[in-house]
Amino acid sequence: MDVISVIRTKRDRGELTPDQIDWVIDAYTRGEVAHEQMSSLAMAVFLNGMNRTEIARWTAAMIASGERMDFSSLARPTADKHSTGGVGDKITLPLAPLVAACGAAVPQLSGRGLGHTGGTLDKLEAIPGWRAQLSNAEMMDVLRDVGSVICAAGDGLAPADKKLYALRDVTGTVESIPLIASSIMSKKIAEGTGSLVLDVKVGSGAFMKNLDDARELAATMVELGTDHGVRTRALLTDMSTPLGLTAGNALEVRESVEVLAGGGPADVVDLTLALAREMLDAAGLTDADPAKALADGTAMDHWRRMIQAQGGDPDAPLPVAREQHTVTAPASGVLTSLDAYAVGLAAWRLGAGRARKEDPVQAGAGVELHAKPGDAIQQGQPLLTLHTDTPEKFDYALTSLEAAYDIAPAGTAVTRTPIVLDRIA
Amino acid sequence: MDVISVIRTKRDRGELTPDQIDWVIDAYTRGEVAHEQMSSLAMAVFLNGMNRTEIARWTAAMIASGERMDFSSLARPTADKHSTGGVGDKITLPLAPLVAACGAAVPQLSGRGLGHTGGTLDKLEAIPGWRAQLSNAEMMDVLRDVGSVICAAGDGLAPADKKLYALRDVTGTVESIPLIASSIMSKKIAEGTGSLVLDVKVGSGAFMKNLDDARELAATMVELGTDHGVRTRALLTDMSTPLGLTAGNALEVRESVEVLAGGGPADVVDLTLALAREMLDAAGLTDADPAKALADGTAMDHWRRMIQAQGGDPDAPLPVAREQHTVTAPASGVLTSLDAYAVGLAAWRLGAGRARKEDPVQAGAGVELHAKPGDAIQQGQPLLTLHTDTPEKFDYALTSLEAAYDIAPAGTAVTRTPIVLDRIA
Repeated sequence: MDVISVIRTKRDRGELTPDQIDWVIDAYTRGEVAHEQMSSLAMAVFLNGMNRTEIARWTAAMIASGERMDFSSLARPTADKHSTGGVGDKITLPLAPLVAACGAAVPQLSGRGLGHTGGTLDKLEAIPGWRAQLSNAEMMDVLRDVGSVICAAGDGLAPADKKLYALRDVTGTVESIPLIASSIMSKKIAEGTGSLVLDVKVGSGAFMKNLDDARELAATMVELGTDHGVRTRALLTDMSTPLGLTAGNALEVRESVEVLAGGGPADVVDLTLALAREMLDAAGLTDADPAKALADGTAMDHWRRMIQAQGGDPDAPLPVAREQHTVTAPASGVLTSLDAYAVGLAAWRLGAGRARKEDPVQAGAGVELHAKPGDAIQQGQPLLTLHTDTPEKFDYALTSLEAAYDIAPAGTAVTRTPIVLDRIA
Repeated sequence: MDVISVIRTKRDRGELTPDQIDWVIDAYTRGEVAHEQMSSLAMAVFLNGMNRTEIARWTAAMIASGERMDFSSLARPTADKHSTGGVGDKITLPLAPLVAACGAAVPQLSGRGLGHTGGTLDKLEAIPGWRAQLSNAEMMDVLRDVGSVICAAGDGLAPADKKLYALRDVTGTVESIPLIASSIMSKKIAEGTGSLVLDVKVGSGAFMKNLDDARELAATMVELGTDHGVRTRALLTDMSTPLGLTAGNALEVRESVEVLAGGGPADVVDLTLALAREMLDAAGLTDADPAKALADGTAMDHWRRMIQAQGGDPDAPLPVAREQHTVTAPASGVLTSLDAYAVGLAAWRLGAGRARKEDPVQAGAGVELHAKPGDAIQQGQPLLTLHTDTPEKFDYALTSLEAAYDIAPAGTAVTRTPIVLDRIA
């Protein structure tokens, strides 16, 4: 097999054979195919696509590059959730203990943030003492004792994906449906969950800017999961405006705890419950009542035990940024839009995210929202509060917010977008 | 400037700005842009193209990456020729001394072969003692004393192109008109010739398989040269069948010497004279008579002096391969086709070419033709003779020749393709 013939096949709009795919993924993982050859192939895939047969084989080859976990020794059915990433998307935090409280085991292997979308591990690390790195044995212990665990994926799962993902990140080949679908699903299938619910974000703050692309991505992933014996379904959810009222690590932990305490913003509660119902249904726990588990404190109970099991102190005060700057409403009326991407970018510029993998993040940095689209606004009222330890970043963050919102005259009718846009199963 | 935004611009079918092009070529040459980033960009260029404005800037940036030579101290006008590469294309060998004999200075910086097309330096190295590597001072001395020099390009000319060419070679991004045009022209413009004639090959043995692509490549290169003050014109010439009767290093030197002695195959003589007339005309030497210089021995004289000036012995016997194998005609009739690519591949497999840059080549290996399309054939007569030092390669070479020729019943009319198909100036 020869890498140039594989590249040429895709470059010239051909279909890659199963042998070509198996070979190129394995040879790249072993280092026989060089980074510059794989990135050339990735760009050809980006521009010329892969069909479902190719994507399935590509995914299988990435799974085969590493180990597969096995949760069959647990007494409970396993259910996992994956979000394609958005601004203010803290749903994993309340969701995992909530679903565990309803009887499923939730092995949530998560990542860190890169660019304008946050990462679940960065958020939880705002909690004093909490550890993201667990051995496989520790992970199983937490899962058995608490029912849910949120931790970093080990190096043994789909190492081909790990290598390819890092390469795509620096070569402009990220936003490709075949490459995104195979990357997500190779990790999730290798992780060994029995059922999986995908939260596919649509809108300015998401990879997928329109509903058609999001549907294509969701359908591709559902098919991949189903073919590998994982009960998989997807919700398409709105990411035109941030989820909830916070974007930033400690800010989002605070909001998640509010949800677990029975409060929190309506969109976060609604989406948490919608995803919980899908996970429980996929896991065969059709009688479970997640709304009750939120209301009666059992979800909060599981959260506290999960945080403690990973070294965290659920009662410790959360870090607060040293400086705040508040943006006030320039006019009275009704807020008609508040752009997710602009808010995500501002939070990132304030220090909540990282530009390179090795950068640190600020636990307290981020953006707090005081209104959501549809809300009535009085001139001079607080609209957004920016938080950072590095106040010299305020101006830079504010430039991303200049055209981020619209205020229409009072009485203007605003259609509120539902949080769940579609469902694919 | 950020490399991912440059890659994205081209990936998303945008036009690269002058600043983006200048920056990415410079940053790649300095090593700030990594190979895997440049290959991703090269594939995006391959698939989404560049317009003439982008190609001009790309070429200028590659020229600016190194030194430019200056021949203004010579008393004669300079003229150079570049071929896009074909099977049996030994034209540089008789052409350079012929044009020098007619009064122009010919600074012919040449390359080595890779794949099925041969390289001028590999051919001349079949001559005992001949050296391809000259310092700039040595090159100027030969040029001043003899009027023509054929040698390897120094490392100082267009280093960005050198690096990018090596990268394209291993990443499936070679056959792109914008990348080929900018690669060829950056080297030729940096070389400092006053006029340039491009021999753009068309057919199975060439990069460009059809006339439209070849015209596009030729027009692009003529415009680039003209914009940089080089009098540039192009001939589109046939490469559906090998040039002359030999493909292989020493075999082609022998045929070139036949042409310089006033003999040789008609197509080689015709193309040598057509290119010589274009070079002399572009150099302003409109009264020169290259046919006379071939006939009266002055071209041969210049050849002998040029070879001697670079350490070669023009009288030394040329290397001969240890083994020969002759393919005979399976039927009588008329030869209607003999495929250039198949013959080039056979010569390469016999040892005349290399698979990797560091491989050695066999001086004596190659394929000798005993008939050309249009010739009458008797059953059992020799059609092709294969030459090699490694006879275990005969079978492998023969497989590439299985469908390489067609013999039609005697009397079938054969349209002979003219060697020059079009001219662009």
